[in-house]
Amino acid sequence: MPDYPTDPDCLFCKIVAGEIPCHKLYEDDRVLSFLDIGPLSAGHALVIPKGHYETIDRVPAEDAAAMFRIVPALSRAIMRAAGASAWNLLQNNGEAAGQAVGHVHLHIIPRPAGSSRDAPIEGNGLPFNWPTGEIDHKKAGGLAETIRQYV
Amino acid sequence: MPDYPTDPDCLFCKIVAGEIPCHKLYEDDRVLSFLDIGPLSAGHALVIPKGHYETIDRVPAEDAAAMFRIVPALSRAIMRAAGASAWNLLQNNGEAAGQAVGHVHLHIIPRPAGSSRDAPIEGNGLPFNWPTGEIDHKKAGGLAETIRQYV
Repeated sequence: MPDYPTDPDCLFCKIVAGEIPCHKLYEDDRVLSFLDIGPLSAGHALVIPKGHYETIDRVPAEDAAAMFRIVPALSRAIMRAAGASAWNLLQNNGEAAGQAVGHVHLHIIPRPAGSSRDAPIEGNGLPFNWPTGEIDHKKAGGLAETIRQYV
Repeated sequence: MPDYPTDPDCLFCKIVAGEIPCHKLYEDDRVLSFLDIGPLSAGHALVIPKGHYETIDRVPAEDAAAMFRIVPALSRAIMRAAGASAWNLLQNNGEAAGQAVGHVHLHIIPRPAGSSRDAPIEGNGLPFNWPTGEIDHKKAGGLAETIRQYV
């Protein structure tokens, strides 16, 4: 029996258990990486903890560390194979944030040469906007204090 | 002297050194977190390694692990303080991917209640699209094999 929580109805748990095939990129005791089957660009990959946690805020700290420990070497390998030099890492928590599978996953999304972030065309990577606000330093100071107390 | 690389001209290195102030959320030996001064939503935070590395693919594995080890507790604290239940984690590598400061940073971006991912309105979090492609399993199998050799 694995020493992490599993959900028999979860697509990614079935991939971890080998019941559903994947294009595997990397595996260790805590972490699995494989190609996304609905890619935003060639080489679009997922990194998941083997344990079933819905969002990253519920993942034990050491499993979160394990997920990211492999990201530098894995992303270098993906960019080299995909011929990309820029890329985005995205991780969505909650349906309102665009999460589609309820098992934590990091997206590693190559940005093909010649693409830019505001080109919402299939195969060009992650298209996003950046409608930046201006910080209110007084409010921000209070918010930061509250967050520090909660961490 | 710190035991990590620094760049005297880097904005984030100056924040790490205490030469430029920030709304600090968390700090340990390897990692610093503070509020983004151009927030996409209330509580928009950054997590950076103290060492100066341009992109996550150049960060030593243990520093990458340290960056993510704090994300579960830190994001719980941010969502509680900001009153959000969904959020995105984004990390941009390279100008073509939207990177604006050349020192690795994770964005933790709360999605306020009632917002959704395709509402590009200031204060509503990260707006993005998902122009998904269909995987070509034959090509994907070859690509995965190449990536596994490079990791």
